[in-house]
Amino acid sequence: MTHFIPPFASPSTNRQIVLARRPAGTPGRDDFASQNAPVPSPGDGTFLVRNLYLSADPVQRGWAANPALTPIGAPMRALAVGVVVDSKDPSIRAGEVVYGFFGWQDYAVATRADLLSLIPNPRAPLSTYAGVLGMPGVTAWLALHDIAPPSAGQSVLVSTAAGTVGSVVGQIARQAGAHVVGLTGSDQKVAACIDRFGYHEAYNYKTGDLAETLARARPEGFNTYFDNTGGWILDTAIRAMARHGRIIQCGTAATPSWTPPPTGLRNEREVLMRVLSWTGFFIFDHAHRFGEAVDRLTDMLVAGQLDRDETVEAGLPHVVGALEALFTGANSGKTLTYIGED
Amino acid sequence: MTHFIPPFASPSTNRQIVLARRPAGTPGRDDFASQNAPVPSPGDGTFLVRNLYLSADPVQRGWAANPALTPIGAPMRALAVGVVVDSKDPSIRAGEVVYGFFGWQDYAVATRADLLSLIPNPRAPLSTYAGVLGMPGVTAWLALHDIAPPSAGQSVLVSTAAGTVGSVVGQIARQAGAHVVGLTGSDQKVAACIDRFGYHEAYNYKTGDLAETLARARPEGFNTYFDNTGGWILDTAIRAMARHGRIIQCGTAATPSWTPPPTGLRNEREVLMRVLSWTGFFIFDHAHRFGEAVDRLTDMLVAGQLDRDETVEAGLPHVVGALEALFTGANSGKTLTYIGED
Repeated sequence: MTHFIPPFASPSTNRQIVLARRPAGTPGRDDFASQNAPVPSPGDGTFLVRNLYLSADPVQRGWAANPALTPIGAPMRALAVGVVVDSKDPSIRAGEVVYGFFGWQDYAVATRADLLSLIPNPRAPLSTYAGVLGMPGVTAWLALHDIAPPSAGQSVLVSTAAGTVGSVVGQIARQAGAHVVGLTGSDQKVAACIDRFGYHEAYNYKTGDLAETLARARPEGFNTYFDNTGGWILDTAIRAMARHGRIIQCGTAATPSWTPPPTGLRNEREVLMRVLSWTGFFIFDHAHRFGEAVDRLTDMLVAGQLDRDETVEAGLPHVVGALEALFTGANSGKTLTYIGED
Repeated sequence: MTHFIPPFASPSTNRQIVLARRPAGTPGRDDFASQNAPVPSPGDGTFLVRNLYLSADPVQRGWAANPALTPIGAPMRALAVGVVVDSKDPSIRAGEVVYGFFGWQDYAVATRADLLSLIPNPRAPLSTYAGVLGMPGVTAWLALHDIAPPSAGQSVLVSTAAGTVGSVVGQIARQAGAHVVGLTGSDQKVAACIDRFGYHEAYNYKTGDLAETLARARPEGFNTYFDNTGGWILDTAIRAMARHGRIIQCGTAATPSWTPPPTGLRNEREVLMRVLSWTGFFIFDHAHRFGEAVDRLTDMLVAGQLDRDETVEAGLPHVVGALEALFTGANSGKTLTYIGED
């Protein structure tokens, strides 16, 4: 069993990327500021984490908008992979790898409630615990298995098909024997869907007539639509569903702002006439099942059955750009910011 | 055991209300014409029904729009309660009461596939087998039990609360111990919801601010929304749902025409953030379970636990007006057209 804990520096200040103002819509670099704070000490029942890989995730748009989750002046709420360097919690030892809500900063004092994964013996590179083995991968695994378990002969449509969530959905569904069709926003990502993630078909929704494309791809309609975008792509996909199909609502990336509430095609008649079931999925309702999903995904990864499209950039300032890129579609796969050498 | 088979005439021609043209939107009287045809004779494996109670149901809007279901010049596709007067099907005897797809006409030649209920020993007035014991009542029963079984402490919101489907939903949910809130379109119907159907609260959606009304009625949000309307009432109700709530999409009465496709508030973010499950229900997917539901509903009716708001008008020409009234909201409860004395 190989441990992939890289060497890391132990700076004497705690660099932080804090929320400087409440973002209007999607967060951008002007919404953040850098500051240095003292390295904190863990109190009883807590432990100190040295963050190594900082994550940028679409869900942070919601966290940045919510004063209860990210106060102005506080480190941006974020997931990260780190190593415990000091512990006053008898169940957590220094040297253990952890993944959880540690914020955009070098150090975090955390409790078990802040953890999504405790990884005493990593079987995979640490960065993957924030990617295909982290929130995005586990989201894909649990949402698909809970709401619409894929099987042979069924068809599964996936939006943001080349993203971390989408690409894991596509790979799981393909391995379950489903016919898998991906939607993504560039020809380069279409190629990644086919070449890396095993989609049977993939289409650039920005070119051509999407309704015609979907009708041609699956004249009998799709059994499952795993939706990460909402918006007009959803409106088009819902009209390409087979009877008794299932829609998993996992994200709404296509809509930059919900204030004022945007309008679109009315969809309740599609729900009724196609006898659909349309279900929201919120990963943090399922934190207690994280470990089970990570184990299964790790098995796939170790067996070479799970492609991880992951980019690691070194240096704390990169993390803001990684978040911005999520909302412009400039990213490809999971971008992590490594801060262990700083 | 009382049989409620009324005396009935046996006219020598088969009067029919036929579809004269394809309706634009909701069907109205100019879309229909009267004609007389010979009384048909049943062939092998079929039987002849003398219709007694003709039904008008919202689903006929869809049937009238669909050339495969109602060709121009053919009797309007409709449900009816009748008595078998001649049978060439050894499993069906003359004198048995039947409920099924017999059309707006005096006589129909039918097969078992046209039946929803075979009622050899009626325990209730025959008209009820097209109302609270017919498609509307069975829809309420199966949709509620399959998708969101009500229970004590839960809250259930119902639109078209005083209609046949809605009023049965309200009564079932109330008897299961749920807190039941009805939405309807007149103060008179609000009173019927409270006085007859046992809703804890009922509101006229045409007066006041519905969002405020729902927030006041259930600040913690509704667990179930049984929706028969769609449209802006749905858009408002979805924003009043509790987390993990369930929406049953059973009708879209608020939208008179889907051509061109109407627009409204985007709802996918509500599905995601409230972690809702929004499911269509189509009664004809469940024809094999009709008998079970009719038995349970009959038990309730016989025990005095099911109010049936039913109006019977005598004379074939009334049936078109009964259908029109469904779409203007002028009806109250179930209107049946009795044609046995003609």
